Amino acid sequence: MIKDLIAKNRSYRRFFQEVSIERQTLRELVDLARLSASGANLQPLKYILSCDPQKNALIFAHLAWAGYLKDWPSPSEGEKPSAYIIILIDTQIRNSVGCDHGIAAQSILLGTTEKGLGGCIIASVQREGLRKALEIPSRYEILLVLALGKPSEKVVIETVGPSGDIKYWRDAEDIHHVPKRALDDIIIG
Amino acid sequence: MIKDLIAKNRSYRRFFQEVSIERQTLRELVDLARLSASGANLQPLKYILSCDPQKNALIFAHLAWAGYLKDWPSPSEGEKPSAYIIILIDTQIRNSVGCDHGIAAQSILLGTTEKGLGGCIIASVQREGLRKALEIPSRYEILLVLALGKPSEKVVIETVGPSGDIKYWRDAEDIHHVPKRALDDIIIG
Repeated sequence: MIKDLIAKNRSYRRFFQEVSIERQTLRELVDLARLSASGANLQPLKYILSCDPQKNALIFAHLAWAGYLKDWPSPSEGEKPSAYIIILIDTQIRNSVGCDHGIAAQSILLGTTEKGLGGCIIASVQREGLRKALEIPSRYEILLVLALGKPSEKVVIETVGPSGDIKYWRDAEDIHHVPKRALDDIIIG
Repeated sequence: MIKDLIAKNRSYRRFFQEVSIERQTLRELVDLARLSASGANLQPLKYILSCDPQKNALIFAHLAWAGYLKDWPSPSEGEKPSAYIIILIDTQIRNSVGCDHGIAAQSILLGTTEKGLGGCIIASVQREGLRKALEIPSRYEILLVLALGKPSEKVVIETVGPSGDIKYWRDAEDIHHVPKRALDDIIIG
C-alpha cells in the first residue's frame, strides 16, 4: 500500500554512515523521477550523484540541518549520509521549475524508503559554495539536495496540539517527533 | 513495487465521466499528502475537494488542457474528470511554497493510481476566475488543480528522439505518447 510507504518515508537526518549506497542504486532512484510528471513535459531537471566519501564531504560542508533543533547543528561523523542526489534545473531548457522538483524528490524518496533506506530533502544549501566545490556549470541552478542513507534514528508523527506549534522536536530517548496538522484542518472546502 | 506504480501513474486527460468518485476517497488521497514532507514542516497547503457535477463544472470552466494538442481543446462531455482536488497555499502560514505542492501532488496521484483511477496536474488555471466561482478567501492562493477520474485513454512512454522534441502527441489510434529524456541525459555528474 502506498500509504504505508508514505507513512514510513519520514525525513531522516541521522544514518548508519558505514552502510554504503552504490551508484547504481542512485541511478535507479533517479529513474523514478525520470518517469514522473513534469510541467509541459519539458523535463528540465538534471541530477548529480554522490556516493564516495570525498565527494560526500564536499557536499555535506554546504548543507544546513534541522533548523528547529538548536542544540543539534548537524549529523556527527558516523551518522552522516552515505549518498546524495543533487537536483538541478537546466536553465537552457526552462528557468522556472513549478513543482517538478517536489514530484521528483517524492518519487526518489519513496523509492529510497522501499529499499530500506531513508533520506531528507534539504533546501537550505549554500548554493554558490557547492557550485564551486563541484564545479557545476552556470547553466544549472541547484534546487535541492537529497541526503540519503540507512536511517539510525526513530521518527514518529503526532497531531499538532492546541498551540498550533508545528516544530519538530526530540525527546529524552532521542526520538524525533513531527507534528502534522489534522486532516480536517487542511481540507477547507 | 513503487516503480510499477510510478510508471502506471501517467497524466490522464480523458476519463469515464460516469464513474463517480466519493468525497471519502478524496479525503483519503489528501491524507497521503498530509503525511508527506513539508519544508520546515510548516504545512502551508490546504485543499478544496469536488466530486459533484455542479462544482466540477465550475472548476472545469477555469482550466486549460494539453497545450501541445492544438486540435484538442479539452475533454468532451462524457470524458471529463469526475473529481478535483485543488491545492492552495495558506498565506497566513507561508508565502512561498518551495516544492511542497509537487510532493503533495505526487503523493495524491500515486494513491489515485493505486485505487485504479488516474489524473492530471493542471497548473494552467484561470486563478482569479476560479477564486470567484468558488468564493475562495483571499488568504489562500490557488497553486494547482488535480483533475481525477477513471482514465479512458491509453498513455505510453517513449524515449526522446534525436530531434530532442519532448512534446507529447496522439497517434492515429488515439494513443497518447509521452517522450521522456534518457537516464544518461539527465544525470550530469
